[in-house]
Order: sequence, then structure tokens, then C-alpha cells
Amino acid sequence: MTADIGVTGLAVMGANLARNLARNGYTVALHNRSVAKTDALLEAHGEEGRFVRTETLAELVQALERPRRVLVMVKAGAPVDAVIEELVPLLDEGDIIIDGGNSFFEETRRREESLRGEGIHFVGVGVSGGEEGALNGPSIMPGGSQESYESLGPMLERIAADFHGEPCCAWIGTDGAGHYVKMVHNGIEYADMQVIGEAYDLMRSVAGLEPAAQAEVFREWNTTDLASYLIEITSEVLEQEDEITGRPLVDVIVDAAGQKGTGRWTAISALEVGSPVTAIAESVFARSISSQQQLRSQTTQVFSSGIDEHAPTPDYGPEFVEDVRKALYASKLVAYAQGLDMLVAAGEEFGWDLDLRSIASLWRAGCIIRADLLDTIMKAYDVPASRRPQNLLLAQDFTEAINECLPAWRRVVAAAATQGVPAPVFSSSLAYYDGLRRDRLPAALTQGLRDYFGAHTYRRIDQEGTFHTLWSADRSEVQQ
Amino acid sequence: MTADIGVTGLAVMGANLARNLARNGYTVALHNRSVAKTDALLEAHGEEGRFVRTETLAELVQALERPRRVLVMVKAGAPVDAVIEELVPLLDEGDIIIDGGNSFFEETRRREESLRGEGIHFVGVGVSGGEEGALNGPSIMPGGSQESYESLGPMLERIAADFHGEPCCAWIGTDGAGHYVKMVHNGIEYADMQVIGEAYDLMRSVAGLEPAAQAEVFREWNTTDLASYLIEITSEVLEQEDEITGRPLVDVIVDAAGQKGTGRWTAISALEVGSPVTAIAESVFARSISSQQQLRSQTTQVFSSGIDEHAPTPDYGPEFVEDVRKALYASKLVAYAQGLDMLVAAGEEFGWDLDLRSIASLWRAGCIIRADLLDTIMKAYDVPASRRPQNLLLAQDFTEAINECLPAWRRVVAAAATQGVPAPVFSSSLAYYDGLRRDRLPAALTQGLRDYFGAHTYRRIDQEGTFHTLWSADRSEVQQ
Repeated sequence: MTADIGVTGLAVMGANLARNLARNGYTVALHNRSVAKTDALLEAHGEEGRFVRTETLAELVQALERPRRVLVMVKAGAPVDAVIEELVPLLDEGDIIIDGGNSFFEETRRREESLRGEGIHFVGVGVSGGEEGALNGPSIMPGGSQESYESLGPMLERIAADFHGEPCCAWIGTDGAGHYVKMVHNGIEYADMQVIGEAYDLMRSVAGLEPAAQAEVFREWNTTDLASYLIEITSEVLEQEDEITGRPLVDVIVDAAGQKGTGRWTAISALEVGSPVTAIAESVFARSISSQQQLRSQTTQVFSSGIDEHAPTPDYGPEFVEDVRKALYASKLVAYAQGLDMLVAAGEEFGWDLDLRSIASLWRAGCIIRADLLDTIMKAYDVPASRRPQNLLLAQDFTEAINECLPAWRRVVAAAATQGVPAPVFSSSLAYYDGLRRDRLPAALTQGLRDYFGAHTYRRIDQEGTFHTLWSADRSEVQQ
Repeated sequence: MTADIGVTGLAVMGANLARNLARNGYTVALHNRSVAKTDALLEAHGEEGRFVRTETLAELVQALERPRRVLVMVKAGAPVDAVIEELVPLLDEGDIIIDGGNSFFEETRRREESLRGEGIHFVGVGVSGGEEGALNGPSIMPGGSQESYESLGPMLERIAADFHGEPCCAWIGTDGAGHYVKMVHNGIEYADMQVIGEAYDLMRSVAGLEPAAQAEVFREWNTTDLASYLIEITSEVLEQEDEITGRPLVDVIVDAAGQKGTGRWTAISALEVGSPVTAIAESVFARSISSQQQLRSQTTQVFSSGIDEHAPTPDYGPEFVEDVRKALYASKLVAYAQGLDMLVAAGEEFGWDLDLRSIASLWRAGCIIRADLLDTIMKAYDVPASRRPQNLLLAQDFTEAINECLPAWRRVVAAAATQGVPAPVFSSSLAYYDGLRRDRLPAALTQGLRDYFGAHTYRRIDQEGTFHTLWSADRSEVQQ
């Protein structure tokens, strides 16, 4: 029996993808460095489909039909290179190596280029949806050659999540494009979770809503424009009571979130391509701050609140909760707009013709950021190229949605400032919007200062050319 | 006549450093790829000191006393490597190559390591102060071996800026430490200019103060805690009238500021070392936004303001201006605190024992961010190690200063939000402060969500260990 695809690396993600493939009718050859894991998988789930047990990579390769497809599910970094090195001598021209891990896109670019020289297709695939998604239908973002997608695409589309009959899988672009888009997905996920956290903190600290009451609020919000997986599970987490103390679970969890992975990469890459992703960067920084526990143990002792106790306090009741909902939605829209903008900038940088319509479409199910909103985003780009918005917020639906949220958004950011609740993404997203909205920005003053101290020159609004004022002489202007 | 030092690369920075050295009594050998530049310098300024004219790098090296010191003042990047490659065969063990350009610190690390193997000292030197500073006394941040500083330090200290008798030059640390600290200096400079821009925009848009009137305000502010070079030149730029139109110059300068250099590198490096530099990153992003002119031409047309016209408007008079001053000062303190924090994190990452007292001391004069504040910062670290604040804002002077600014800072951030003025650094700095101030952060909810969708586990506040709730089973908690 020859297999349709081989999977090497049978930790939970690899095992679940292998099972997903087998459940969908493909014959799957299995390999793991320790054979015990292969046998355990076969023992537990061998009846789910057709599996071929192999003990070495050579056996795995021999078990495959041509062109061979080998899905590598090992830890990102050196282990991927090690497997590739072992695989290459066993493969023939036209065979396909697939990296389904969370590899850094520059590494994928490097590997693809190197293997292309050997006639082997290297496909970096972003897979979102966690263990559950891997088994039952993830969102799949494959990069690599278009030719390899012809052979591989149908399989991936079959095991992917399904959104009303459309698979959440489509060819993204050459080399590292798939891993890049997955990285930005995760960056947006950081922002999504951060804005939920800011809303929760404001409702708790300002409006006094306890977690159980907020579980109801989020459940209600899940029937609005905000409907999404993360909003849904927020109500699940908030209503969870701790078995030991009887307190809300959220109150016994240490409030320190790490940020070593894809969120950080996203912010770094955005800076490199010159794209302003304030919402994602602030989310990464908010996690950094939360993790500085030794510092926080000192600062919380001595930093004063400076909250004006005598100022008239507005009634932070149900209207405030609705204001927070709108602030959350508007900030979330900004985060998505920024994420999509950075994809365009990265596409120009790395030579990918990324299709935002398609990318939004395959985030509609299977992945962590799945949300009703993504269907609306997809539709915003589902128009002839000449009418596609240059920024998501310019799509009429979203311009109107922001407009409808704006007064509430402004009130909430003001309330966060006066009441001492950190809401960095709410506020920086509003500043981003106002930065794009304003006719004139103080960057003109920055340019004046730079010309003063460094003769960096400036442009004029009324003439072409670059100009310099002779600041330390007679202060006349010269054209450079 | 043997020379004390050689300078290759006689564009304005190289020429001015060469003149500064000669004016201070050193004999300076000159070299430039095109001899015409060397001759022009000698023709114009040859009488300022003792110069040795050379036509080739070999001649330059021959003209130097041992150990030889060669200051390379060419464009950062490949040109530096090209000069090094040409120099190395001409040098002997113990000689010193000095890179005085704006090189990326990782390149400096690479070059230092490679040249160390050849027995040559490579010193990456950060030089701040622009052309003027290079000639009359810059702030100098040298990295490299301590041994090389023994030979080179006295010369650099002599040509550096002087702050009440102390030179603004001190050994920073090994390999790339000097260029790193210069990079962070520039990142702070980005934030310094951005907060000035936000203050200007608020006073203009909310309080209606025209540039000429603001020139007076900034002149007045320059007699307060804010006293600094950038505040001083802000009043110069704001009072400048355009010759052609008669309008304030700041109104005819195109409001687009670039961000391709050290500011961006600073934000990227901070993300890499896990340090939350919100003020610097927001400053970089604000420049990106300002530069998106094609996008802005569309967004300014269709984005509504959503400002509540019916809300009671406070009196944005002189008290508001004073509030803005305090918001600026507090935000500036946050930017410095974040910049110094990232130096500590980078020191741990790259093996530098950075002395924050010393670094603050050499920014007190010569460089663009020179300010009275830096003397106060220096003093905050001028205490026994056990009493040094872990974060600048924990130094008693600054905790008190922030406390005194806080109510105003909150009012200004709220006013920016309600009045539609983008103030991303004012607001994100306040969020940073509140993030450090608050006893509990919503990162606990983030951890709960991550445990729900990815089994990422969490820690508990009341027990050691990592825990996971069986969300899709009976929701009991298990210890991992």
C-alpha cells in the first residue's frame, strides 16, 4: 500500500493532523524518532483510517506515492533543518517537504530557496486552531510554489475548517508567505485578547462589574458585531469558579502573560517594513509589563493614582458598558486594519501578491481569531481591484461602523485616563484613527526641528524640492 | 612628523571631528578616497592645527604613531567593511580601528569579534551632536575593549562636550555597547520630539494657541524642569516666519517625518530583548503614519471626527497649557525610564555591565537630548548599587515629580481623546505608568483564554506549579 502523504513528528499537532488526513480518506505514512509514539498513535486511533507504520525516514519515503509529500511536524528551529537534511538525499526532484510548524518566515524563505536549488518543493504552512483545530479542521495558510499547491492543495483544503462550504485554506504566496500570514494572524490574536482584557478591566474597575456578571455581558456581546470565538470563550473563562477558593478563577490566575513568540515577531516585522501596527505592538508591550513582576511588586507599592477624587464622576452604568463594547469593536477594527496593512507592505517587500480577500476568508473558521467580522472584511475586498479600499477602515461598512462607535470610543479612552485604568490599545488605536483623520500633523514641527539641529531639510506644501533654513546664520531659506 | 590619529572619510562629520582633534592639539593624518576633499579641508582649515596630508590608506597608516588609531568616518554598512578590509593588512597587532558612524550594533559586534581574532582593536563609537557637535564637542559613546580605551579615551574625552568640567565621554562596554547606547539615545530623541509635537498640537488645536504664541510658551517652559536643547529650539522653529508666504514656517513644512533609522532599530531591539518601550515605538509609528500621505489624502476626506459638540467644553486656557506642560514632562520621564530599562535588558542579553549613571552623565551636553533632566537622572543613579532604583520612575525625585504631574496628565490625555487630537505617546506613557501601578492586570484573563484554546497552562497566585483547567471536559483543574 503506498501512502498519499507522510507525517514525521507525532507530538499532538502532528498526530492530530495525521488523524485528520486519515479520517478524510488519505493513506498516511507515520514516522516518529521514537517508534513508541507511532505505536501509541496506531494503538489509540489506528482504526480511524489507513495508516502505514514506518520506523525510519527512509521507510517513510519509500512508502509514499510520487511526487512524495512529507509533512514535517517538529519543533521550529534547528530540528526542522535536521529533518530536512536527513530527508533530502532520500527524495527525488519534484517531491514536496511541508513544514507545518510555527517557523519564522525568514527561515522558511531560506529553506525554500536552498531546496529549490535541489529541485525539491518546500512548503511552509501556517496552521491555526490549536490541537482541536488540527484534528477537526484548522485554518491553513500554505506558502511555496504554485506548482506544489496543485499537488498539495486539494488535500489541505479537504482537512481544513469549512466556512459554509468554503475551505479555510488557500495558496498564500511563494516561499515564506504562508508562515508570514500565520504570524500576522497571531499578532492580531494578541491585539484581540488585549482589547478584551481592557474592556474587562474597565468594566470591573470603573463600572464595578464582577467576573460572573461580565460573563453575561460577553455572552450578550457575542450576539452583536463582536461575535467571535474569543468573545465566546471569554464568557466561559469569566464564569469559571475556582474549586479551591470559591473565587472567580480569573482572580487566582497570576496576571503575567509571556510574549516570546509570534506576536513579538509581528511587531518587529512591521517595524522593518515601516508599517504602523500600534495595536499589536501595544499588546506585546502590555504582556511585557505584566511579566515584570519583580518591578511591579515595587511600583504598585509607591506609585500614586493621582485620580481626582473631587471631580464629578459620571454614572458608569449600562451606558458605559455599551460604550466599552463600541470602544472594543472600534479598536479591534483598527488592529485588523493595521494587520492587513502590514501584509500589503510585507508583500511589496518580499515579492508576494497577497490577496486580502482570500486571507480574510480563510480566517473565518478553524483559527483562534475566527469572527463574524472576518466575513464582512472578506466582502470589503470582494470587489474589483480598482475599488478595493487602501485601508480596511476606508471600506464603507467600516467607515460607518467607526463613525457609529466614535463618541463612545472617545468617552471610554477619556474614562480610562481619568480613572487610572491602563487601556493602551483602546487609546493608541484611537490615536491612530485621529492621526489618519487629521489634515495636519505635528510631524511638520518634527521636520523643522530636524532641519534645525541636523540640516535634514524639509519639503514645502507649496513647491517641489527640499529646503533648508539657515538657522545659525540669517535664517533665510535655501533650496537644496 | 608622526600623527596621533588618522581620519579616513572627510565628509562633514569626519572633517569636523578631524578639525576638533587638531584644535585640541593632536596631530591628525587625513585621508579621503578623493584627494580633492582632503585638499579642500586643508585649504579651508589647515591653519587650525597640525594635519598630515595623505593620498592612500597605506600612507595614512605609515603616518601614525603606534599603536595606530584610525578613525573611519564613512557611510554605515558595506563601506565600513570595505575600509576595514583594506586597512587590516596595513596594521599591526594592538592597533585600533574606530568606527565613528551610525553603524548597527550587531554589525559592530560582528566586526569587533572578527578583528579581535587578528589582534586588532575595533571600537564602535556613537557620536551625537550633529555637525556642530562634531566640531565643537559632541557626546561620545565608545564601545570596545577596555584596553583600547586606555589609549583612545583621553583623546576622545578631550574633544567631547564638557558639562561643568566633566567630559561627555566614557567607556560604555565591550563590542557594540557604544553604538547600542547611541541607538537608544536616538530612540529617546524620537520620543522627545514626539511629545513636543503632541504638546504643540494640543495647544494649537484645543487651546487655539498660534505658533508665535507657542514660541513664547516653549521659551517659558525652557526655564522649568523641561529645560533642554529640544525645547529651546522648538521656540526658535515656532517663531520662524516663512519668507514667501508670511505664514508660520511650521505651517508650510510638509507634515511627513521619516523613520528609517535608529528609532526603528531601537524599537526592534527592545522587542527582541523583551523591554516595553511604548513611548519610542509609538513615536516611530507616529512618523510612519505621518508619512502615509497617499492614504491620508483619502482618510482625511472621509473619516469623521465624532467629537461630541454638545458636551460641555472646559475652559482650555492657561491652566490647560500648564496641564500640557506637566503631561509632556511626565511622558518624557516615562520615555527615559523605558530607554534606560531597555539598556539594562540589552546589557543582560549581550553581556554588557552598563553604568546608567555614567550614560546619563554623558548625555548632559553635546547631544540632541541634552537637558537639565539628565543631571537629575544621573544623580538618581549616583548612589550605592543596593540603593539604585530598578526603574527610573522609582527614584524618589521622579516618583514625586510624576505624582505632581498626574492629575494634569490624566486631564490632558482625556482632552486629547475627547477633542480628537492624536497624542499616542502621552496616552501610552500614562497607560504604562498605570500598568506598573495597578495591583492586578487583565493579563490574568489573557492567561485564562490561552489555557482555554491552547492548553497553555497558568500559574496560581496561591500555589507553586502550573495548572490547566479541563475546559472541554468537566472543567476541573489539574496540575501539570
